[in-house]
Amino acid sequence: MKPLTLEPGEFTYTRSVQFAETDLAGIVHFSAYFRYMEEAEHALWRAVGLSVAGDRLHWPRVAAYCDYTNPLRFEDEITVKVRAGFGRRRIQYGFEIRRADTVAATGAITSVCTRANAAGTLESIEIPQELVARLRGALR
Amino acid sequence: MKPLTLEPGEFTYTRSVQFAETDLAGIVHFSAYFRYMEEAEHALWRAVGLSVAGDRLHWPRVAAYCDYTNPLRFEDEITVKVRAGFGRRRIQYGFEIRRADTVAATGAITSVCTRANAAGTLESIEIPQELVARLRGALR
Amino acid sequence: MKPLTLEPGEFTYTRSVQFAETDLAGIVHFSAYFRYMEEAEHALWRAVGLSVAGDRLHWPRVAAYCDYTNPLRFEDEITVKVRAGFGRRRIQYGFEIRRADTVAATGAITSVCTRANAAGTLESIEIPQELVARLRGALR
Amino acid sequence: MKPLTLEPGEFTYTRSVQFAETDLAGIVHFSAYFRYMEEAEHALWRAVGLSVAGDRLHWPRVAAYCDYTNPLRFEDEITVKVRAGFGRRRIQYGFEIRRADTVAATGAITSVCTRANAAGTLESIEIPQELVARLRGALR
Repeated sequence: MKPLTLEPGEFTYTRSVQFAETDLAGIVHFSAYFRYMEEAEHALWRAVGLSVAGDRLHWPRVAAYCDYTNPLRFEDEITVKVRAGFGRRRIQYGFEIRRADTVAATGAITSVCTRANAAGTLESIEIPQELVARLRGALR
Repeated sequence: MKPLTLEPGEFTYTRSVQFAETDLAGIVHFSAYFRYMEEAEHALWRAVGLSVAGDRLHWPRVAAYCDYTNPLRFEDEITVKVRAGFGRRRIQYGFEIRRADTVAATGAITSVCTRANAAGTLESIEIPQELVARLRGALR
Repeated sequence: MKPLTLEPGEFTYTRSVQFAETDLAGIVHFSAYFRYMEEAEHALWRAVGLSVAGDRLHWPRVAAYCDYTNPLRFEDEITVKVRAGFGRRRIQYGFEIRRADTVAATGAITSVCTRANAAGTLESIEIPQELVARLRGALR
Repeated sequence: MKPLTLEPGEFTYTRSVQFAETDLAGIVHFSAYFRYMEEAEHALWRAVGLSVAGDRLHWPRVAAYCDYTNPLRFEDEITVKVRAGFGRRRIQYGFEIRRADTVAATGAITSVCTRANAAGTLESIEIPQELVARLRGALR
């Protein structure tokens, strides 16, 4: 699947690193960054009154990656910048995770818009344009 | 709720400590022990062909505790011994987590037998006796 | 170990339920409550300029429990009230987790004050009184 | 950083999906796949008597990705195939996660070989050739 072009607007989410997210190397475990990205995505939806779990649509992930540039540590205050690109049936989110002025990681998550059919199987559908319009409202 | 008496039979589950379960103190995070206990419980059900997610029943937890006696570390091979006590509407599991001959922790989890009513709310019901009989088959 | 008496002052921590903390039953996994309690404990320390990872002391857990009274769901806004009781060598935290006016759970975590000796082994020591005085400053 | 060529040999790791790894959508949370990949990597090291935490070297991740093709569910038995490519200072692992004959996901993790210098900062170093030789012994 080819990457989508991210639009210029961005949303910012902040939180601090929790103890249980570190590992014996003394830094944040690499899998926790994907949770940080997801939290930022969901905060973006909530910022315009939406929820990924809020209606009959489901948004399974089809791809995720992260490039790690600087470690994060317990009690670091982090900022996650979110941007988005909208395809017909999928949304690609781009993320930058910072600790103060230091970029700790960049990443992306791609989700497909699906709806359960009569048999209960998820089928991809076109993203409702009103939803795209609302999400764009949180990306400035 | 008063504690149930655990029956004498026991079930044994083994696994090794994973890297992501440790924290910056270099030992397993205390919340991971509850996952070890749950994994052992579910392995007990599977050992007699059952699944906690297998029919119309749901088993929400009403209580859980753990006493920590010795730390666990990355790549430790651990053994979880499970026992059980059966009430009319709840099951109490007792656990002992060992690393070789050392007891690392003891704990308990209590679950209530529930079924969704017409409105979708979970209501507690009596545990089907056939289910108790089958679980006892794994506890020797 | 006998329970400590909790002092009357309390500290309040708030956060929202994240997607990854739910399980296939549609509610928050029971192990996540222990992370909520720990986050509240660490926020209490930070509120008076302290960190559990901040000096030569280590605070391994010796006991933890949780009683679950009402389920929590994705995007619930939760409040964690923390109280504390101070022994000579241990701190017992008591927690109440609420969603608006509903009590979702109550629990406790007990930690022992330790310091690494020359051989690198953790040995329990008496809690420095200045530390107790500072923590009490966050519990009003 | 350009991708490394994966060598033909592979290592196989198996485990089952645990309850706490699912989310309210009823399937395995996308972040758990990175833990499955890491577990397989560490099992590969152990298979030849090595540990990623076993000597003075540290292996921070610099990149990770996953492409999701089919959902995984509670109690699925999964197989993780690992391959590896060796650079001068980094190892790239390639993974395929299957449930029976169905490919659930493919992914990769890249780690850099580092050692703490006198100031305690991690510096990248060349991978000891003996270590590469031993890891190759598990990849057939």
